[in-house]
Amino acid sequence: MKKFPRTEKTRIRRLPKRGSYDRDTIYALIDEALICHVGFIVDAEPHVIPTAIARLNNDIYLHGSRLSRMLKHLAEGKDACIVVTHLDGLVLARSGFHHSMNYRSVVIYGNGVPVTGRDKREILDLFVERLVPGRTTDIRAINRKELNATTVVKFELDQVSAKIRCGPPVDDAEDYDLPIWAGELPFTLQAGKPRNDPAMRQKLPVPSYLTRYKRK
Amino acid sequence: MKKFPRTEKTRIRRLPKRGSYDRDTIYALIDEALICHVGFIVDAEPHVIPTAIARLNNDIYLHGSRLSRMLKHLAEGKDACIVVTHLDGLVLARSGFHHSMNYRSVVIYGNGVPVTGRDKREILDLFVERLVPGRTTDIRAINRKELNATTVVKFELDQVSAKIRCGPPVDDAEDYDLPIWAGELPFTLQAGKPRNDPAMRQKLPVPSYLTRYKRK
Repeated sequence: MKKFPRTEKTRIRRLPKRGSYDRDTIYALIDEALICHVGFIVDAEPHVIPTAIARLNNDIYLHGSRLSRMLKHLAEGKDACIVVTHLDGLVLARSGFHHSMNYRSVVIYGNGVPVTGRDKREILDLFVERLVPGRTTDIRAINRKELNATTVVKFELDQVSAKIRCGPPVDDAEDYDLPIWAGELPFTLQAGKPRNDPAMRQKLPVPSYLTRYKRK
Repeated sequence: MKKFPRTEKTRIRRLPKRGSYDRDTIYALIDEALICHVGFIVDAEPHVIPTAIARLNNDIYLHGSRLSRMLKHLAEGKDACIVVTHLDGLVLARSGFHHSMNYRSVVIYGNGVPVTGRDKREILDLFVERLVPGRTTDIRAINRKELNATTVVKFELDQVSAKIRCGPPVDDAEDYDLPIWAGELPFTLQAGKPRNDPAMRQKLPVPSYLTRYKRK
């Protein structure tokens, strides 16, 4: 299936032209993300927390301390809404009303399932690889205590949609004659120079996966 | 009052050392943000939507189409959780377990109040100024139809806290002897070159507030 189903829950209500249900588009937007924002309900009140996200096949994973209220809650299968957002720039129109931002976002609705056994170790390595591809070959392997201290929760991608705005402003027809500059100011999240941990006890070169690290 | 109250709701539960309730710190983090993620509940299910945010004094504002489900909901004063997140870099530790990210985030709990009358026009200009300081002097003024089509909701800052992680990794004592590079990879959201709207009918220079635009 190349597309996710368009359901009552995932149907884009505002500006439906910006909606996408295309699987490859949605996978790519999730993979480009380092963090997501997770919405959940505790005692009938909404909470939102930013956290790391990792995708494998048609599932996404969240992880954190076994003691985290959010992770406990998600591991119980309570309703979650997980959002990935890329801010691509500002859109400067001739009127304030048509000012906007260019963005690409994904909204995922679902209920988590805790990950255990050998899968858990794999997924924890996946989180490191998603942050910095190549890093897992260098680090000290995870131990039993760390595995036990960590909760991993899986969400199948099913109730999911993307919303994308790109390109120049769209102004009212009569405003195009006004002598007002209009256009876009693009943004990119850029990696700077790696900084050595001042506590390093040996002189070690910056790994090549960092010197050539590039944000998509 | 220099600090926001530390309440049962805003108390940082995980890693409380990272918490801050300092008013100036929180104001600065909100002002640096272009977007926030808004959590709310509809039919007992959590929703999260990214949207623009603007602060004035001790209030923050959200805005959008009068037809937006989120805005209708927030204007009714339903519970909201509004989060601002700045991702500052990756933290590469000697173990996967201690890998982390540097970030600065603010979580705001509150109930919105619709903004009407002359204030509404002021706040809509504020949104444009927050995107691009200086822009409002150039644009066509908002008209009655646009004012009516837009909902603005105000939230007083009261139940609010910040969470900040910065600096190098913190590894297990015995791991510091391992021959593994450790440190940080900083990230910044950078503005690129302004792009003219191809539909511009006159040759107009890029405004100086864009050529010297800088992200904080």
